[in-house]
Amino acid sequence: MPPVNFETHPGRYRHLRLEAESDRARLILKVEEGGGLRPDYQLKLNSYDLGVDIEIADAVNRLRFEHPGVSVVTLTSALDDVFCAGANIFMLAGSDHAFKVNFCKYTNETRLAMEEASALSGQRYLAALNGICSGGGYELALACDEIVLVDDRRSAVSLPEIPFLGVLPGTGGLTRLVDKRKVRRDLADIFVTLAEGVRGEKAVSWGLVDALIARSRFRETIEQRASAMVSPDRERVARRGVILDALSPTISDDQIRYRHLRLGLDHKRRLAELHVAGPQAVEPIRDSAVALGADWYPLRLFREIDDALLRLRFNYPEIGLVTVYSEGDLERVCEIDRQLHAHGEDYFVNEVNLLIRRVLKRMDLTAKSFFAVIDESSCFGGFLAELVLAADRSYMKSAAGAAIAFGPNNGGRFPMSNGLSRLATRFLAQPDHAAKVVAQAGRYSTDEALAAGLVTVTPDELDWDDEIRLAIDERLSLSPDALTGMEASLRFAGPETMETKIFGRLSCWQNWIFQRPNAIGPRGALKLYGRPESPQFDWHRT
Amino acid sequence: MPPVNFETHPGRYRHLRLEAESDRARLILKVEEGGGLRPDYQLKLNSYDLGVDIEIADAVNRLRFEHPGVSVVTLTSALDDVFCAGANIFMLAGSDHAFKVNFCKYTNETRLAMEEASALSGQRYLAALNGICSGGGYELALACDEIVLVDDRRSAVSLPEIPFLGVLPGTGGLTRLVDKRKVRRDLADIFVTLAEGVRGEKAVSWGLVDALIARSRFRETIEQRASAMVSPDRERVARRGVILDALSPTISDDQIRYRHLRLGLDHKRRLAELHVAGPQAVEPIRDSAVALGADWYPLRLFREIDDALLRLRFNYPEIGLVTVYSEGDLERVCEIDRQLHAHGEDYFVNEVNLLIRRVLKRMDLTAKSFFAVIDESSCFGGFLAELVLAADRSYMKSAAGAAIAFGPNNGGRFPMSNGLSRLATRFLAQPDHAAKVVAQAGRYSTDEALAAGLVTVTPDELDWDDEIRLAIDERLSLSPDALTGMEASLRFAGPETMETKIFGRLSCWQNWIFQRPNAIGPRGALKLYGRPESPQFDWHRT
Repeated sequence: MPPVNFETHPGRYRHLRLEAESDRARLILKVEEGGGLRPDYQLKLNSYDLGVDIEIADAVNRLRFEHPGVSVVTLTSALDDVFCAGANIFMLAGSDHAFKVNFCKYTNETRLAMEEASALSGQRYLAALNGICSGGGYELALACDEIVLVDDRRSAVSLPEIPFLGVLPGTGGLTRLVDKRKVRRDLADIFVTLAEGVRGEKAVSWGLVDALIARSRFRETIEQRASAMVSPDRERVARRGVILDALSPTISDDQIRYRHLRLGLDHKRRLAELHVAGPQAVEPIRDSAVALGADWYPLRLFREIDDALLRLRFNYPEIGLVTVYSEGDLERVCEIDRQLHAHGEDYFVNEVNLLIRRVLKRMDLTAKSFFAVIDESSCFGGFLAELVLAADRSYMKSAAGAAIAFGPNNGGRFPMSNGLSRLATRFLAQPDHAAKVVAQAGRYSTDEALAAGLVTVTPDELDWDDEIRLAIDERLSLSPDALTGMEASLRFAGPETMETKIFGRLSCWQNWIFQRPNAIGPRGALKLYGRPESPQFDWHRT
Repeated sequence: MPPVNFETHPGRYRHLRLEAESDRARLILKVEEGGGLRPDYQLKLNSYDLGVDIEIADAVNRLRFEHPGVSVVTLTSALDDVFCAGANIFMLAGSDHAFKVNFCKYTNETRLAMEEASALSGQRYLAALNGICSGGGYELALACDEIVLVDDRRSAVSLPEIPFLGVLPGTGGLTRLVDKRKVRRDLADIFVTLAEGVRGEKAVSWGLVDALIARSRFRETIEQRASAMVSPDRERVARRGVILDALSPTISDDQIRYRHLRLGLDHKRRLAELHVAGPQAVEPIRDSAVALGADWYPLRLFREIDDALLRLRFNYPEIGLVTVYSEGDLERVCEIDRQLHAHGEDYFVNEVNLLIRRVLKRMDLTAKSFFAVIDESSCFGGFLAELVLAADRSYMKSAAGAAIAFGPNNGGRFPMSNGLSRLATRFLAQPDHAAKVVAQAGRYSTDEALAAGLVTVTPDELDWDDEIRLAIDERLSLSPDALTGMEASLRFAGPETMETKIFGRLSCWQNWIFQRPNAIGPRGALKLYGRPESPQFDWHRT
């Protein structure tokens, strides 16, 4: 498969139509059968692959920035009697383990972005199921606020992965059933082992869907329900959007270059270096923050970081460690950080803050090690200091002039999936200390940062290069599997949420199943799907 | 390996010495090198296998029942300069996947039982680390309330699994580091990638141990610290213990027969039937509950269920489904349930309640499907009704006389690992309804139970046999791996705790790693441990 490109645009969508007008939008699935990322499968029945999900993720993000007046998004299909048949099975069966795992992680992040848009941007989702809705199709519906199913004595919702494929619904389905929709566990047990799914009144009474609509009144009732979901805030409709222009990085064998970011790639060492360039200037916010536009430094930078993380995950699987550098004027970064804080209620600044939050979560969930490296030229302040806190370790040079800064945004503006700020997670044993760092809002020299527990190791100038090189080499010598499991355990101290549960429990079991012979062996259920042979299982329970 | 026997007794211990006197006890590890369950490894340096852990579990349990006056347990070693080197690597390297997973689950349950004894039975644990304490040895210490390390410029605590073996510390280590001891995640990251571990003042300042003691004053200082941990409740010492006699079940090819329990084994169908016989009589509680002794019905029955569950896990891996039946006088069961409730503050009744709680958690965590089957002869009431709620589904015959009963114990006397009662977990969407079932405390006919959402399916008499058979056959046709992952997801709706995190996040990652070629392939790190060759990794990060 050629390298995946995560940038797209509604004008280039092949599988999706985005219609937005005034306070309402519609996302209409019409997947192009021959438009898959690989030629070995056909995307029949609105089934999806990564390419389709990239369009959904793009649409969900653009709706927030480009159509901020929209408060209801109806998600439906342009195919007759088919909403969505879920992730394409032949695509899954033909993918290697790492791709399957990364694919599921990405689709999970997209579903969570829909739920975040609902909770924090006031863009609610209505799933209008006009027909077949199975597997990942139903999981997509589960990420919506309301699910409405056509009542035609035929259309059902179903999660047939277990009976058909011997794998789990991999995009949050099991967790959302019992945790979000709070379906009774024994009914959920029946539902997910029933290949044909559940329809009609039973689907409503079990809590699988919110309502049924007769086919003859489907369109009009969906319109009515969408109207009822529209925000009562009439000023919202007048909001101006910001068009997200293309990032169009320059890609060569050893680096990817963006406007504010450079990702260096040392394939031989399996090392990547993420270099953040600080802001050249700070634009004042006058009448309206939205005038800052897509060029506003924090927006542009975190869109670039997001793109770089996704490329690292999918296109550079051999990279094991990412070192994170920054270079620039710390005071300017802190000034932008104060803008992000002071104007946090502004709808555009709010969207930028939420984007930063999503990108940092994406970093927490990336199966690579991260080491932050801080020296005299670094500018890790406020929102950029979160990159240091998100890293597995931080190395700060014991040199005059090296500094790192924290502020009120570090107190919870960018919570992790566990619901806590990175400072609160870091200082689980000393919540007062985390609060103090936030309240004091200032700069820390290397000695001060070490004493306050804000960085990990502070080599002096003489040892600096050697110590960093040694730490990198040591990290890169360890089992990549053990590191993935270790980081997934150490990064998420403290509470678990539905979100961490999806990644930490459900996805992890799916990862396990995805490499078992009962799924992917020559006689495994996933491998044999669509063929006349029956799978042969090793019946031992583990 | 011959079938594992989980019954043992201090008089038969090969690896452990249990000394209890007045308010204090000592558990002294001295593992017999040649005493492993299999002949292909030597248990050097107090390393352990399942046989050692069975003795630890037995001791922890007997301390609670047989020595209820004890309030401090010092855990130490009889070897010079060695506390415990953790799970034996050669044992792990030579075990199949299912055994490794079940072994880790069991050791985790034992560690959690120590923490439960501390929190709810007032028996606190002091780990006296007299020397090498690595891997599972340190995880054993992490399960204690206090960890004290000898200060001899040599002895360190370490979790060398990642650098040495390419697997995770599998017995809660990573989770307890950051969640229980709240060690900073970046320090934890360094610690668990450092083969030699951390010693001296650094171990204290990082929070890995609570104190250091010079070797010359080790014994005396441990005694002092243990004294300081003794309960101030002086009446506690006078408590009478109850000796736990052997269960000694009769085992044949197609069944295991206990006093109150029969486990039928249909190997061909991969089906087990758990038949609970109700109590023959109800002993009144007069002066003291402890007089009821080890023969008291709920204690004996749940010890038997525990034994049966462990045998099912280890000795019958091909069994996929366990049907749960009961037969007896429902009113008598309810009467005992009222005793368990009314005398819940009595130390002996408290221990029985806690045992029931642990056994039910063991059921929640068993990788087999459970279907409860209820008919006219059933006696699922109160504590026995928890077996129905713990099952993945319940089938109740639509017949006059069939009944199930609930009472105050179902409101939280036996919480799941997630901290909620099974009723609260079941009715996550309707917490009031769960509270109502508890408050009303009564019997439900089949129709009433169905209407109240307490059972899953209620076939009528004509369809009963067919429907049960069909449900069983359908369940047994599904991928055992998918079912394991599905049940681990659906059974634990609601909050996650450190306990569920150990099983749901950490262990699940370990399960994943345990089947990766980087660990167990011919060039994997676990496979090559102790040999001159270096492991060869597939560096792709997943």
